Amino acid sequence: MKFKSLFISSLLLASQSALLTAETPSLEAKDIKIAEQLRDEALKSSKGYAIVESLTTEVGPRMAGTAGDAAAVAWGEAKLKELGFDKVWKEPVTFPTWKRGVETAEVVSPFPQPLVITALGFSVGTPKGGLSAEIKAYETLQDLKDAPENDAKGKIVFIKYRMKKARDGSGYGPAVSARGSGAVEAAKKGAVGILIRSIGTQSHRMAHTGMMRYAKDVNKIPAAALSSPDADLLENMLTRGKPVTVKLTLGSYDGPEYTSYNVIGEITGSEKPEEYVLIGGHLDSWDLGTGALDDGAGIAITTAAAELISRLPERPKRSIRVIMWANEEQGLVGARAYAEMHKDKLANLITGAESDFGADRIWRIDSRVKPEALSVAKDIAKVMEPLGIKYGNNRAGGGPDLIPLRQLGVSVFSLRQDGTDYFDYHHTPDDTLDKIEKEALDQNTAAYVVLAYLAAQMNGDFGQKVE
Amino acid sequence: MKFKSLFISSLLLASQSALLTAETPSLEAKDIKIAEQLRDEALKSSKGYAIVESLTTEVGPRMAGTAGDAAAVAWGEAKLKELGFDKVWKEPVTFPTWKRGVETAEVVSPFPQPLVITALGFSVGTPKGGLSAEIKAYETLQDLKDAPENDAKGKIVFIKYRMKKARDGSGYGPAVSARGSGAVEAAKKGAVGILIRSIGTQSHRMAHTGMMRYAKDVNKIPAAALSSPDADLLENMLTRGKPVTVKLTLGSYDGPEYTSYNVIGEITGSEKPEEYVLIGGHLDSWDLGTGALDDGAGIAITTAAAELISRLPERPKRSIRVIMWANEEQGLVGARAYAEMHKDKLANLITGAESDFGADRIWRIDSRVKPEALSVAKDIAKVMEPLGIKYGNNRAGGGPDLIPLRQLGVSVFSLRQDGTDYFDYHHTPDDTLDKIEKEALDQNTAAYVVLAYLAAQMNGDFGQKVE
Repeated sequence: MKFKSLFISSLLLASQSALLTAETPSLEAKDIKIAEQLRDEALKSSKGYAIVESLTTEVGPRMAGTAGDAAAVAWGEAKLKELGFDKVWKEPVTFPTWKRGVETAEVVSPFPQPLVITALGFSVGTPKGGLSAEIKAYETLQDLKDAPENDAKGKIVFIKYRMKKARDGSGYGPAVSARGSGAVEAAKKGAVGILIRSIGTQSHRMAHTGMMRYAKDVNKIPAAALSSPDADLLENMLTRGKPVTVKLTLGSYDGPEYTSYNVIGEITGSEKPEEYVLIGGHLDSWDLGTGALDDGAGIAITTAAAELISRLPERPKRSIRVIMWANEEQGLVGARAYAEMHKDKLANLITGAESDFGADRIWRIDSRVKPEALSVAKDIAKVMEPLGIKYGNNRAGGGPDLIPLRQLGVSVFSLRQDGTDYFDYHHTPDDTLDKIEKEALDQNTAAYVVLAYLAAQMNGDFGQKVE
Repeated sequence: MKFKSLFISSLLLASQSALLTAETPSLEAKDIKIAEQLRDEALKSSKGYAIVESLTTEVGPRMAGTAGDAAAVAWGEAKLKELGFDKVWKEPVTFPTWKRGVETAEVVSPFPQPLVITALGFSVGTPKGGLSAEIKAYETLQDLKDAPENDAKGKIVFIKYRMKKARDGSGYGPAVSARGSGAVEAAKKGAVGILIRSIGTQSHRMAHTGMMRYAKDVNKIPAAALSSPDADLLENMLTRGKPVTVKLTLGSYDGPEYTSYNVIGEITGSEKPEEYVLIGGHLDSWDLGTGALDDGAGIAITTAAAELISRLPERPKRSIRVIMWANEEQGLVGARAYAEMHKDKLANLITGAESDFGADRIWRIDSRVKPEALSVAKDIAKVMEPLGIKYGNNRAGGGPDLIPLRQLGVSVFSLRQDGTDYFDYHHTPDDTLDKIEKEALDQNTAAYVVLAYLAAQMNGDFGQKVE
């Protein structure tokens, strides 16, 4: 029925504004010129470094639900205002919390020695005096899954799997499942605790924390990561063929519900202010380091990029929205809240990208846009070429906090950083400012400023439901 | 008086055997050939790695006066017997002890954050609830010394000096004085505590421990080292111009007297068994790591070298004595005890060398011998040339535990290792087995076996009183 379909089209047009017009996606030469100037300016600015220096020095660790989280929210609001963003606001995000407490481990026999460990996020604690049990080692999580029933009865499971280094971080996926679901699988085999070799790629005596999950109807057992040298040590002890007994003491426990905030700053568009390009990083960190790489760098890169655009004589056509995401680490909590709150107005969201893979140089740009907009994505990539960045493919992920929006069909870009060293520091005490190279950070800012500005200026759009 | 002088000469000859003969120092071609075979064999053996793997796995941390010290002594005796040394014995060494206890620090204001620190060896503890005071920073120890009276009154002194990396470890000297005497100089200016930037060359979040000293009539204040990233953090906070208050909590205290042992193994000489070549490393370590580089490697290299010589069809002319020195870290205690106990028989000690600078490759050999023996030292160096080792000079130090003997005139050699990375790990939790490269360790063993064998076989001697 014509009338009905016309009516629906009108409704869609009203809510999704220009995005459903048939305007051919394109860039204008004058905008490309400005983008090039912004790019070159970014390489000289070092504004990003000042931002991450400020966050790590004045706030430091900011695990979701801690005093550091609150300090980070206050810092974010103040910083965006100080940098002259047109609008600054925050949106509440509520979630359960977890407290770390004491965490120690030691080999009790046959060779008494302390071990360096850290509790995995949301692990239960051990009984107060600790938990002593014999170690039962498995090469991989799969080996544990494949083991006979009760194979680890009364034991502490040890998963030996070593994560592999890769520029694209592809070693993380095969490794991280041991962290996420190791405790569940170990408990199914009767284990009383689990130790995993840290999900990391360095060999320093620091353990890598990160989230784990329990499953309904499976016994909750304490879970911790060993530093790489300590995992080596345990392996070497086990080769002697004698039973190795370890004592594990974790004081971790679940805390009360907490309300944090997505902190948002906007450079307001001059022509289509309700439409926006979304960039950002996550404001929370794990508690062990100062969250310089994960994800102070992302906050710094994207905030610096938007700030550069705000210094142009004219505002861009569309708005640039920087989101400092709340509680990414414990389950994309801020991202899910944002998607839920804004799901009826996603047509305004022209595209999005999160920087959350450290502070090393970007080497590739991937897009996720409708076919008609692919040429624009490649034109944007071309402006980044002097930065050493090449176009990749049209299957961009967009970054962790873009997942909920992407799943709703939002177009995204991935500015892919070199992640070779990222997992040397990720989720450890070693995630500190000294690991950031100013010039690499500036290269990132230069890429983000190009993406954000050209997406804000483009004719047409990148499409909706581009999944 | 002729009679008297003859009598004295006889006595000297009796006690100092061949060392006072006028025999021209020289090497025999057949011995050089055997040394070359031993050298090449060492490069294939990897025996050294097995020894340091055993020590770090089965004993681990072994700070003087701890249970680990006792375990290390038992390990050392058992290992030397297992390896077939002709004689194995131990000599007692008694010393005061120190206990570490809790060690935490945090910035209280203006930016509350935890700091990673470690107590310096023999530091007093803080009052039980910790000690809070404003930070007063100095670039160097000298700046602190030059400061006006009461310049740090009621404050915690912070020394910012950054140790420099160098192959020969020459950055250590200028840096380490802040650790040794910083507390005394700070107390003289009225300070209540002292934090130093770690005496180290890496940027990981681990603090370097090591010895400090108090002085008579100067107030004893607690002393700790900050990890490099934490020292950076404190510096960055201080640039804001606001007072920075830190809370320091140390639970360290002096323990009772303890008796440990120099553990000694001997390959007994076939012609002049009472004369010996002394090689070794120190058996104690600091408590934070497993003492792989400092000085498990030295133990392993020298023990493996002697063991190789014991596999020859014939014993060498002179004895080879491996000493696993007790308590080097807290003041060359085992070395001083040995020198005292053996000072009347030093004529039997043909030369000595300690391996105590990690596990990287040797690049130079220095000697300290009488002029007539210089050609032998250079001939020995020549056998090491295929290992990438060149002769340096005749001003060898011999290694820390050779200092007391050298001061009594004993000839020494220094097989100088590449120390570029040594102070990345030295005295930290990161001093673990994974930092040792097997091939580099074998190169060290190859050099020591050449030195030990040729010194045991040489005609003549290296001289006495060669200081």
